[in-house]
Amino acid sequence: MSKKLAGIFAPISTPFDNEDISLDHLKSNMRKYKETGLAGFFALGSNGESKSLTETEKLQILDVVLREKGDHQVVMAGTGYESTRQTISFSKKAVEIGADYVSVVTPSYFKKRLTDEALIGYYTDVADAVPIPVLAYNAPGFTGMTLSAKVIEKISRHPNIAGMKDTSPGNMSSYLSVCGDDFDVLSGTVSTLFTAMALGASGGVVSLANAFPNTCCDLYKKLRSADLEDARRLHYLLFNLNRSVSGSFGVAGVKYAMDVAGYYGGNPRLPLLPLSREGQQFIYDAISNAGLLGA
Amino acid sequence: MSKKLAGIFAPISTPFDNEDISLDHLKSNMRKYKETGLAGFFALGSNGESKSLTETEKLQILDVVLREKGDHQVVMAGTGYESTRQTISFSKKAVEIGADYVSVVTPSYFKKRLTDEALIGYYTDVADAVPIPVLAYNAPGFTGMTLSAKVIEKISRHPNIAGMKDTSPGNMSSYLSVCGDDFDVLSGTVSTLFTAMALGASGGVVSLANAFPNTCCDLYKKLRSADLEDARRLHYLLFNLNRSVSGSFGVAGVKYAMDVAGYYGGNPRLPLLPLSREGQQFIYDAISNAGLLGA
Amino acid sequence: MSKKLAGIFAPISTPFDNEDISLDHLKSNMRKYKETGLAGFFALGSNGESKSLTETEKLQILDVVLREKGDHQVVMAGTGYESTRQTISFSKKAVEIGADYVSVVTPSYFKKRLTDEALIGYYTDVADAVPIPVLAYNAPGFTGMTLSAKVIEKISRHPNIAGMKDTSPGNMSSYLSVCGDDFDVLSGTVSTLFTAMALGASGGVVSLANAFPNTCCDLYKKLRSADLEDARRLHYLLFNLNRSVSGSFGVAGVKYAMDVAGYYGGNPRLPLLPLSREGQQFIYDAISNAGLLGA
Amino acid sequence: MSKKLAGIFAPISTPFDNEDISLDHLKSNMRKYKETGLAGFFALGSNGESKSLTETEKLQILDVVLREKGDHQVVMAGTGYESTRQTISFSKKAVEIGADYVSVVTPSYFKKRLTDEALIGYYTDVADAVPIPVLAYNAPGFTGMTLSAKVIEKISRHPNIAGMKDTSPGNMSSYLSVCGDDFDVLSGTVSTLFTAMALGASGGVVSLANAFPNTCCDLYKKLRSADLEDARRLHYLLFNLNRSVSGSFGVAGVKYAMDVAGYYGGNPRLPLLPLSREGQQFIYDAISNAGLLGA
Repeated sequence: MSKKLAGIFAPISTPFDNEDISLDHLKSNMRKYKETGLAGFFALGSNGESKSLTETEKLQILDVVLREKGDHQVVMAGTGYESTRQTISFSKKAVEIGADYVSVVTPSYFKKRLTDEALIGYYTDVADAVPIPVLAYNAPGFTGMTLSAKVIEKISRHPNIAGMKDTSPGNMSSYLSVCGDDFDVLSGTVSTLFTAMALGASGGVVSLANAFPNTCCDLYKKLRSADLEDARRLHYLLFNLNRSVSGSFGVAGVKYAMDVAGYYGGNPRLPLLPLSREGQQFIYDAISNAGLLGA
Repeated sequence: MSKKLAGIFAPISTPFDNEDISLDHLKSNMRKYKETGLAGFFALGSNGESKSLTETEKLQILDVVLREKGDHQVVMAGTGYESTRQTISFSKKAVEIGADYVSVVTPSYFKKRLTDEALIGYYTDVADAVPIPVLAYNAPGFTGMTLSAKVIEKISRHPNIAGMKDTSPGNMSSYLSVCGDDFDVLSGTVSTLFTAMALGASGGVVSLANAFPNTCCDLYKKLRSADLEDARRLHYLLFNLNRSVSGSFGVAGVKYAMDVAGYYGGNPRLPLLPLSREGQQFIYDAISNAGLLGA
Repeated sequence: MSKKLAGIFAPISTPFDNEDISLDHLKSNMRKYKETGLAGFFALGSNGESKSLTETEKLQILDVVLREKGDHQVVMAGTGYESTRQTISFSKKAVEIGADYVSVVTPSYFKKRLTDEALIGYYTDVADAVPIPVLAYNAPGFTGMTLSAKVIEKISRHPNIAGMKDTSPGNMSSYLSVCGDDFDVLSGTVSTLFTAMALGASGGVVSLANAFPNTCCDLYKKLRSADLEDARRLHYLLFNLNRSVSGSFGVAGVKYAMDVAGYYGGNPRLPLLPLSREGQQFIYDAISNAGLLGA
Repeated sequence: MSKKLAGIFAPISTPFDNEDISLDHLKSNMRKYKETGLAGFFALGSNGESKSLTETEKLQILDVVLREKGDHQVVMAGTGYESTRQTISFSKKAVEIGADYVSVVTPSYFKKRLTDEALIGYYTDVADAVPIPVLAYNAPGFTGMTLSAKVIEKISRHPNIAGMKDTSPGNMSSYLSVCGDDFDVLSGTVSTLFTAMALGASGGVVSLANAFPNTCCDLYKKLRSADLEDARRLHYLLFNLNRSVSGSFGVAGVKYAMDVAGYYGGNPRLPLLPLSREGQQFIYDAISNAGLLGA
């Protein structure tokens, strides 16, 4: 299998209208994304507030993303639940409506008993049962769990586990040093895209791409062309912006940045709170300082 | 409102038969519990593997617990989801089939943005919307989140927030020193039941009560009668046993202890692994050493 | 060996005068403590800013404490360094000038390699070499290390390891359930004195005793006489006060409380900062609310 | 001021002979290092077991390092203590005998009160008092403390704070994005040297350089010449080796690797335990697999 997952993917945010999902706003966002350099989308991820959605809502959202994407764009669907059974069940539904990959976050509620052995079993069972390629998703900031290199070494050899997405700050070398050749590793944040790709990652799923897809794609291109000096400059610009947006305010920050950039962001679903006026100004200023107003 | 939540509550475990929930086994367990000194049950909690169940399964289980309990026994239903909306929606379903209380674990996926303000908003919104009393559930070992005393100080004044369950090791004084008078605090583990009640807690929801309900009730009674010397002896017996069972093996350990004690425990749902032969022997020996074989 | 370490001990704070240690202020404090119900003193502990002192300063301070204490009062000296060799060397100096016990905090700098085996070796080597009884000191809030029950189980059998002081929030049952009969366990904070003694601890080394020795002794007496209701009331009064003083401001808070209570507290040594005006007012109000102004 | 701290520095390990420091072995090691490509040395650091040494021992070691180094090689001396006063006092002694830089690890014992304000005050006071350039040293794995970007932003503007060494896994972009132009940032481990230099760091203080100085210098050279493909290959070789040596066994592992490589390593000082026979074999095999036996 040759490297397939490469480039920049937007972890699609879920538009709400007074707490209801708004498929219209989602469509409108997608039609704009279609015209960008994005390699594809990660639907139903952390940034999409997947954990705050019902299964029905998730399938509606995934359906819109699949219908509205560009032909060349790839869609990964976040399908992880706490039990193997639910993950498999929902993954099959995602397959039915056309997802290209399922991205399966580590279960985490029973973290004390989720040993390497349990996690290897989990990913193996899911990959055996689901007919499309599976990606592992390591997201310690959300789950309080970190996949060990030992787990990755093992599951990366499974013929139906195609890669992983990693949002941890310091495990990229560790994963890349043990995984098999056909295993695509994606950075889960623009903050580490530069170093991850230098180390051998093939791209990133980065929340800032929801608001500034083409600027994120520019960083990817500079990294591919090994234009290190230029890439580093753009890295720090996006690193600082990301710290002000997602780093300071999480999903609500990303959504407000989308509003500023001409997409529909809106409020996150409760209990996540909308941004204060000060928070909005802070993000607006950060975008302005980055020279990305009207970009 | 006078103190209502007092005594020992079993956090009902969910029997599986080859990965399917087994309502028959649940019924059979409940019929035995009915004859014990248990003050009631916590259905759909961590120990019940609630996070591994579908909503349909949850309602079936809750229904059996409500039907099979003794008349005097109280039922709390775990209804927490990550979004306010889903928590309220599922809580209302639990109310419809007859739950006495809803127990709402802290949301945790977006932990970095779940500030005191967001959590106060969350519990307030839920308590405003649900027609039966709400309990907060602090479970840092599962969620990676700890409710601050500030949150408890605030929400304990809400007329429809009746109390909390706490499984953290060192926050009991902190919560009891700020909560209002009508706020019932329950220990979430037999390991801290002794100190929690000395500090003013009114009882406990303790996983060991799934296997040894009457012994747990004995500890409660000794604590109520301020028979400190005797209570302390029993505390250490149960503390050590609990460390060998839940402390070492989590849900799978509790289930095996149930098997030894004559209830149906069985295996946890995957990805949680069943106990190894050595783990089983370890627990059997611990029960034997505690003098609780055949208890 | 019968239980010897019982009662309330003050972890003597170190008075500074413009960054120099002030033995005069220390003498004056000690003369007041002599008249209290304190069972003794812990010199050169965390609260004494021992880690900020030179060896020469430490010995001067210990000498004053030993000279000025009451005849019946016991003195433990904090003698832990990072290496076994330095700890033994300094412990012998403390013995020479008359300390009754040495209290040895866990080494912590090389925390990743300080396995149970290394720590058992450490305490054994120190206890073999030092001619007076050794106490282990578990202080995770300072060291980032927690002694395991396994270490305590082992070292509590050493004939020259007499006990331990524990400042962790949730390990007391664990230690008391494994330690030998002649092993005295002291709580390291007034916040857990009530529960620790209910569980079988024999007293406490509590920073608040630097400012309010007799009130702390009152709590001890009520606990000894099993006057649980009264003890609990006093527990919450001191728990809340302690949270405002040591909990909010650490050493600087304790020192200011001493100033308010008529002892010499003064500023901590840099880099610890003195209290702001607001911090001082906050502590003054907390003492006033506790009814301990002029106590 | 132009960039001065560049290249690979060995954090000199301290040879012990039956628990006594062995200056002879140190001399012999230094004479070999003199012939390598090392840009200099970090004496009295974590890897040098500085926290396990007396002040007298520290000065003896520093003196040997200064006498035996090559003319072009730079020496940084670790001089951090817990108090500002002791750090300044010892730094001045290091200056007297000829150190080029002092490297000051964050104080950490009073971590709860070591706010940004306290740390900025600390580094400012030290830099004001010491006549040679000061480096900050961020070592969360040892101290449990992480310097914030805000502290670095501030202190990097101090005319006498020349740079920092960082051993944390994920803060390099953060520090480099806020520090001033004349502030040299060094990676504190070979595991992150590749990414750190890609991001703009000027070199590294890496424990593996104690055993394999020239191979570490090779990685540095490849990175300087932007030979990314080759550098990445060497990165993974050293990353894997480092994980087996320092990552698995800490100081004892580095010392055994030195023994294998023809330097004197020996045992660490107690309470750190020497390597087991299995540990030794594990490291020998890792060196062999890396092709560095006899390198």
